[in-house]
Amino acid sequence: MPSLISAAEDPRKAVDGALRRLAETEPDIRAWALVDAKGARKAAEGVTNGPLRGVPVGVKDIVDVAGLPTECGSTLRRGRIATSDAWLVDRLRRAGAVPLGKTVTTEFAYFQPGPTRNPHNLAHTPGGSSSGSAAAVAAGVVPLALGSQTAGSLTRPASFCGVAGFVAPVGAWSTRGFTGLSPSLDAPGLITAGVTELALVVEAVGGTRAELPERIRVLVWPGTELADIDPAMLDALNHTARALAAAGAETNDLGDQVRTPELAETHATVMAWEAARSLAAEAEHPESLSTPLRELLERGRRTSKGEYRRAQDTARTARARVLDLLTRVDVILAPAAPGPAPFGLEATGTPVLSRPWQLLGLPVVTVPGHRDPHGMPLGLQLIGHRDRVARLLGIARHTEAVIQEISGGTR
Amino acid sequence: MPSLISAAEDPRKAVDGALRRLAETEPDIRAWALVDAKGARKAAEGVTNGPLRGVPVGVKDIVDVAGLPTECGSTLRRGRIATSDAWLVDRLRRAGAVPLGKTVTTEFAYFQPGPTRNPHNLAHTPGGSSSGSAAAVAAGVVPLALGSQTAGSLTRPASFCGVAGFVAPVGAWSTRGFTGLSPSLDAPGLITAGVTELALVVEAVGGTRAELPERIRVLVWPGTELADIDPAMLDALNHTARALAAAGAETNDLGDQVRTPELAETHATVMAWEAARSLAAEAEHPESLSTPLRELLERGRRTSKGEYRRAQDTARTARARVLDLLTRVDVILAPAAPGPAPFGLEATGTPVLSRPWQLLGLPVVTVPGHRDPHGMPLGLQLIGHRDRVARLLGIARHTEAVIQEISGGTR
Repeated sequence: MPSLISAAEDPRKAVDGALRRLAETEPDIRAWALVDAKGARKAAEGVTNGPLRGVPVGVKDIVDVAGLPTECGSTLRRGRIATSDAWLVDRLRRAGAVPLGKTVTTEFAYFQPGPTRNPHNLAHTPGGSSSGSAAAVAAGVVPLALGSQTAGSLTRPASFCGVAGFVAPVGAWSTRGFTGLSPSLDAPGLITAGVTELALVVEAVGGTRAELPERIRVLVWPGTELADIDPAMLDALNHTARALAAAGAETNDLGDQVRTPELAETHATVMAWEAARSLAAEAEHPESLSTPLRELLERGRRTSKGEYRRAQDTARTARARVLDLLTRVDVILAPAAPGPAPFGLEATGTPVLSRPWQLLGLPVVTVPGHRDPHGMPLGLQLIGHRDRVARLLGIARHTEAVIQEISGGTR
Repeated sequence: MPSLISAAEDPRKAVDGALRRLAETEPDIRAWALVDAKGARKAAEGVTNGPLRGVPVGVKDIVDVAGLPTECGSTLRRGRIATSDAWLVDRLRRAGAVPLGKTVTTEFAYFQPGPTRNPHNLAHTPGGSSSGSAAAVAAGVVPLALGSQTAGSLTRPASFCGVAGFVAPVGAWSTRGFTGLSPSLDAPGLITAGVTELALVVEAVGGTRAELPERIRVLVWPGTELADIDPAMLDALNHTARALAAAGAETNDLGDQVRTPELAETHATVMAWEAARSLAAEAEHPESLSTPLRELLERGRRTSKGEYRRAQDTARTARARVLDLLTRVDVILAPAAPGPAPFGLEATGTPVLSRPWQLLGLPVVTVPGHRDPHGMPLGLQLIGHRDRVARLLGIARHTEAVIQEISGGTR
């Protein structure tokens, strides 16, 4: 049985429990950029009510928490204290949650990793850019963490760390208080241990309650035209699709209905162009930037206004077509990443399986439960219509239950 | 006023307080190799009495704590669980102290650093090899940590982190349960915030009570023949000597009464020869050793038995001469390191100012209190007769008080 986030009996005890677990796991995992024990204990004392009463939360360190620095994994932002809470932090606080501290992000949520390790195998990356948020939840330190996605920054670490993730539709949740990379692609998101908890938190934040339609229509997309997909991941995908079908879902292949290579490339163009503008001030200190980030900003500067406009036109056309498709089916079921977390801490894996869908601004749920033969987690992603988040969550919860059955029991 | 280690009201609360402080500081400082929250809380419940009742302790990760791995900062020892407590851990437990976990050591207590940062400036080394123990005390996580010294492994990090350190005379305290480098040089030691606390713990462990002689005789050694000494360090040394004299001490220069360059070189020969034997099994996995450690073991293998015997003869002769000198004076006052903690985390600074005295097996107290113009700590060391630890501690406590007066107040 999945453990729910229960409204903690005593918020202060919940915070102390998280701090104990953090002290115990942090020397190995290194998921935290900053821990505000004093602030969290004080906030816990003030909490009186709410569906997330006393739930300690990790906040990705590109997201503002009033009174704490937002350092974005970069020396260029060292010590920059935020004066107010980000929109999503404020919503979580209103629901009773207690920010425990800031979790490690890659440099400006791009590719350069922080020190975080994968709780399932310390020699493997936790994924990025929401590295610390995924690892902190996977390590059992906090039941909830806040992340964001511009390419595959939430879906991928959730998959690598064996936890559930939600990426809000672009524009649906405010990014106020987020240090963004790319305004037309950035989306806030949440990470929890399982989809059941995720649905509770999404409801607490956005008011959307998960609902399972009577008839579930699924398009299966293996992603093989974009990456070499690990055989264990393909097995996980196919077993899940068959099990959903056996439980009554209508499953078909996505086939070539979406030109994903073109959309992935278009995503990269939009991201580079916008990132070069978002981080124009930082680009003037190339000596303080990693090579991958410098190259992204350089690509963005070399991209012409015309190219960017054409990319946005491509995105607009594809968005209309795929939204139409998603009125005739409910979700696209796909690998959340090409395989398990790669060995090594020098890179965070590829976001390519997220690029097409993030370009279209669609909501995504990462569903955990599968493992590869070495015991490393394998996540699947469900992509839904931007106006049907309730249905996406309901189907994701159903999919999680189905995976638990076929993988033989509780997670 | 220095804060004392008070026998904690409630040992479990003391442990929880340390865990909270650890959770808050560890993302920056990275002083811990492993935290045993569960074990510490259980041990705290069982503590009934003792002068260190409920005091949480950090244990350098070359020292065995029953049931926890001793990993020595090396992949070669990953996951090696100790079956019983080291002698010193056992003594601390009997006095009521509670091991909280293992602190970061350099690789096999030699030069290759772990991830620990200096709490006074995160861009600077905490020193080594007792890096985590010094940093954990300096960060206020634990009031007491256990370390060891073969060259300058306790005196140097204590100096860099602005805390007090005690190195026991070689052979006086058992090294049972320590992973040693060099049996004729290895000595256990302790780290606390100040000398007052240090004296309390030494008394609790070894029964030696600090005593201040009526007449204090000090030899001052600037160490300039062994290293370039930072001007701020020389100022600290000279001001302290003058203040001790003003308070009634008899101060003179050590001059050339001890041939320190010869002893430093002799120390290096003994250490290399013995380390090559202590780590003979590890030397067979050179691919798993750092370059500095490989070079030490290589030097040890190339050293002939004859050279080693001559080095031990030199040590013996010098030991007799210096012990005789230390019946006519009480202590040698010297810089604990050539200057403040160097910038960077790739190296831990030089132990050269400790080598001569460690070769002679003398007890050493590091006295904190001075700062350089950038606010970085500068420690002084007091070296005493191996049979007069009580007097050494008494003079060190007096010196600490004198430094507090001249540096204008509390620490």
